[in-house]
Amino acid sequence: MLWSTLFIPTLRELSAEAEVVSHQLLLRAGYIRQLAAGVYSHLFLSQRTLLKITGIVREEMDRIGGQEMLLPALNPAEVWKESGRWDLMGDNMFRLKDRFQRDLCLGMTHEEVMTSIARGELRSYKQLPQIWYQIQTKFRDELRPKSGLLRVRQFIMKDSYSFDLAPEGLDAAFDKHFQAYCRIFDRCGLSYVAVEADSGAMGGSQSTEFMVASDAGEDFVVTCSKCGYSANLEKAIAQASPLAQPDPPEDTSPEKFHTPGQKTIADLAAFTKLPETSQMKSLVMVADNKPVLALLRGDHQLSETKFAASMKAREVRTALAHEIVQWFGAEPGSLGPVGMKNIAIVADTALEGRVNMIAGANQDDYHLRGVTPGRDFKADFYDLRQVATGDRCANCGEVLAIQKTIEVGHIFKLGYKYSDSMGLKVLNAAGEEVKVIMGSYGIGLERILSAAIEQHHDKDGMSLPASIAPFTVVVTPVYIADNDQRHAAEEIYRNCKDLGLDALLDDRDERAGVKFKDAELIGIPYRITIGKKLAQGQVELVTRRGKISRDVNVGDAAREVAKAAAQV
Amino acid sequence: MLWSTLFIPTLRELSAEAEVVSHQLLLRAGYIRQLAAGVYSHLFLSQRTLLKITGIVREEMDRIGGQEMLLPALNPAEVWKESGRWDLMGDNMFRLKDRFQRDLCLGMTHEEVMTSIARGELRSYKQLPQIWYQIQTKFRDELRPKSGLLRVRQFIMKDSYSFDLAPEGLDAAFDKHFQAYCRIFDRCGLSYVAVEADSGAMGGSQSTEFMVASDAGEDFVVTCSKCGYSANLEKAIAQASPLAQPDPPEDTSPEKFHTPGQKTIADLAAFTKLPETSQMKSLVMVADNKPVLALLRGDHQLSETKFAASMKAREVRTALAHEIVQWFGAEPGSLGPVGMKNIAIVADTALEGRVNMIAGANQDDYHLRGVTPGRDFKADFYDLRQVATGDRCANCGEVLAIQKTIEVGHIFKLGYKYSDSMGLKVLNAAGEEVKVIMGSYGIGLERILSAAIEQHHDKDGMSLPASIAPFTVVVTPVYIADNDQRHAAEEIYRNCKDLGLDALLDDRDERAGVKFKDAELIGIPYRITIGKKLAQGQVELVTRRGKISRDVNVGDAAREVAKAAAQV
Repeated sequence: MLWSTLFIPTLRELSAEAEVVSHQLLLRAGYIRQLAAGVYSHLFLSQRTLLKITGIVREEMDRIGGQEMLLPALNPAEVWKESGRWDLMGDNMFRLKDRFQRDLCLGMTHEEVMTSIARGELRSYKQLPQIWYQIQTKFRDELRPKSGLLRVRQFIMKDSYSFDLAPEGLDAAFDKHFQAYCRIFDRCGLSYVAVEADSGAMGGSQSTEFMVASDAGEDFVVTCSKCGYSANLEKAIAQASPLAQPDPPEDTSPEKFHTPGQKTIADLAAFTKLPETSQMKSLVMVADNKPVLALLRGDHQLSETKFAASMKAREVRTALAHEIVQWFGAEPGSLGPVGMKNIAIVADTALEGRVNMIAGANQDDYHLRGVTPGRDFKADFYDLRQVATGDRCANCGEVLAIQKTIEVGHIFKLGYKYSDSMGLKVLNAAGEEVKVIMGSYGIGLERILSAAIEQHHDKDGMSLPASIAPFTVVVTPVYIADNDQRHAAEEIYRNCKDLGLDALLDDRDERAGVKFKDAELIGIPYRITIGKKLAQGQVELVTRRGKISRDVNVGDAAREVAKAAAQV
Repeated sequence: MLWSTLFIPTLRELSAEAEVVSHQLLLRAGYIRQLAAGVYSHLFLSQRTLLKITGIVREEMDRIGGQEMLLPALNPAEVWKESGRWDLMGDNMFRLKDRFQRDLCLGMTHEEVMTSIARGELRSYKQLPQIWYQIQTKFRDELRPKSGLLRVRQFIMKDSYSFDLAPEGLDAAFDKHFQAYCRIFDRCGLSYVAVEADSGAMGGSQSTEFMVASDAGEDFVVTCSKCGYSANLEKAIAQASPLAQPDPPEDTSPEKFHTPGQKTIADLAAFTKLPETSQMKSLVMVADNKPVLALLRGDHQLSETKFAASMKAREVRTALAHEIVQWFGAEPGSLGPVGMKNIAIVADTALEGRVNMIAGANQDDYHLRGVTPGRDFKADFYDLRQVATGDRCANCGEVLAIQKTIEVGHIFKLGYKYSDSMGLKVLNAAGEEVKVIMGSYGIGLERILSAAIEQHHDKDGMSLPASIAPFTVVVTPVYIADNDQRHAAEEIYRNCKDLGLDALLDDRDERAGVKFKDAELIGIPYRITIGKKLAQGQVELVTRRGKISRDVNVGDAAREVAKAAAQV
């Protein structure tokens, strides 16, 4: 293609609206433009890149036996009501009514529609296993769209669904997807880590997220450099750090003492001269509208995800101050488990075996010392705490790393959640009706592009891998007005096309500096520059990543690019 | 691929819900399933076919220099308000509000969004011309979705938009699209006709529709077999048929006579013993909320499209009975132009030069004879009538044919409609701000598939062209349990794949009849059957269209298919 004919609206200035690098570069390189909050138009370059990513995703899904479909974005409310998610999705779901006032929504994901197709058509175990996928636009009314294409309200997703007769089949489908996802992210040039994750609103038993380390991300991942353990922060486990001071061993009873104005754990530690690890933190949570008291070691934070899982709750939140006073007659800063009645108490496992701690007395400005779980109150123990900096690996004891990441893929074992709620059954070999076991697997296509930019850029722009860059090579004559240069450029461009390279000829009548800057900004992996050395039969081959330059013979230029691109 | 692993839910029974052939076959062949009224899931086969159609459309758009983009389905109300179409689109537009109660709609077409991108980025004539396209999902809340994929509420469209400095540029872009569309429909195996059409809500000056003759269609096209004239019925012109009886030549004045109970033209013709061609038909229309009297020869019908165009009206309708009585003091059956005041009168050109006709007297049960346009009332003449069976070509006098058709593509010269309303200007070579002239071009992808089925089927199923069929060839061993047959089938299947043929191996343990029926139903163009003649080294090659069968050598089978497929 000829650059002079293309619509590539690059910008020299930084955009005030963009905070993260990928957003900034996508705007400056003329890939995208915003139409509304969290809603972007993909211009020529972005669509070109997305088509390459789509091609890779499609190939890898086909390779594991996936069958491509295309389901509607317009979903009737009925199927979402059957699964119970019409209510659960809340404001995140775009809802509308048609001209006959029938309720519709825009698909956020397609478990419901896929299950409704499956239950209409699958009758026998002989039709299993199945993997169905689509590459399609999803809609989510995000509260805070941000970071360019990283958190948007409309995006392209590859979502797939597996249907199996037995858990072993689901395991196999899950494994196939794991492998396919690794190949997809490898081919897109991403460094990623696969981590244990929570299933959230999807339901199901096991889930793995594919995470790309980046400061632009909104997720946190915990990894162990020694044993390879990795998990989403919401779900990660660790050894608790050692106590700053051992518990006093005496077998005493709780004893009330006056703590005027001491509300926080830090206040109490200073006031009692006992470290935070000796304090017991009491949080009033609400799980599916019921109050629950959650206890943690003073220096620990609650993981709402773990708490929700332990309570098997759909929705959890922190209680409001007025609810706490109404329920317990004391301010949040003075609550504690001793004497607490008619409320479930759960405690983090780090409190198991502890004795004589300090806790709230359920009376404003009073606390208790000598509080011992089991003896002074009853609680169910769960892993409730969020891993913190400095925690050690539960497997091997190494200090864990916590890093910010972008989620680019997520695979779930759904189990029987949708088969149960929507009645998906087949006859097994014995002629009995059995439930089908399902999996659900997603990849965000714009996320791959954004993550690739976050991982591959420098101060001058993107340095995308050849597999997903909008063009593989740009052929740039320094002076287009110089006939020799132009003819050589045209010849090299043709040679590139003949070798099957996705080539661009920068035939614009612009200064060389402008052309170089544009090509660097949009991230074309290779540039062949035709300049003064043409007289000696040489041109310059520049590799975008690292800006490594070398001279090659005119006749070899295209082949050299093809060789280099094939190695990536 | 192996048929045994695929999800191809063919049905033996006819579906009660499907009236037209393509709908019936898409359901029976397991291509689609309905999710809601006018909302379909594309299953494996349909998506496979759509991807092939998409590939053809993309190649031909790229060939004319189109640049692919991808615009959001979620559109903010603002851009549609700017163009004035937020109101105009009425109930056909899906509207919704986001969590902050901001008005959004789902894109029915993308003139507004494309124009908003263009005005933000195009500054100079040097950036023109541009052709931007996308292959994307559109949403229209049809009043009566019907005929399977022919009239739906969500569908895939290739829409493109051209931006030029001057009308000659638009002409060139329009021509390029015309050629591209011809190539697309040719490659998809469609017989079609390009006809003059109305621009409707799109605005603009010139438009051409691409029509496929089919009883499943909802459009009517007028064609002349002699001179090649063709147009949409709404827009077609013709010579009026001759008068059944000449007008009386006397120069008289209108004379009232009693016509008790004679309401219709047919009534009056019988009552007055003068043919319908001697009667003047008076219709009260409403154009943009103003009443207009439209006059036609008694045997002619009004074309609302032509009427709207002549009045330059956005919206036209027939007046309601109570409105007519209120405005004119007479029932619809007795209205006429003589003495009519304070109302615009338009007359069809077939009334020009007529004298002494019969018309309503604006008094119930009375009519006038001796009514002469120009002498007895003033009217503006326009071509207002719809072409009728038996009319003759305005160019060459041949009798015109009227046939039912499916619209598969539509190209428009928009002119300055959106540049005007949304302020799209660039600087010309003289440094002056000038408006950009635009074109808009659309193809419905599901329409292509449906039209291809309507044109290519028989009682046993689809007979799709190889270019868009989900598979090119199916390799069918009669008895999969026969090892020789299975091995031969596998070898032929591999040979097909090696030749780049999109091949399917029917490895199901089913009776041969079932396998043949399924392959015929889903419309695979070629079948290689491995049966008893394998002992003599021969297999059967069956061409789906026409079911032509011949024996070929095992070793030649794949190559014979490749040869045949290449000729289509």
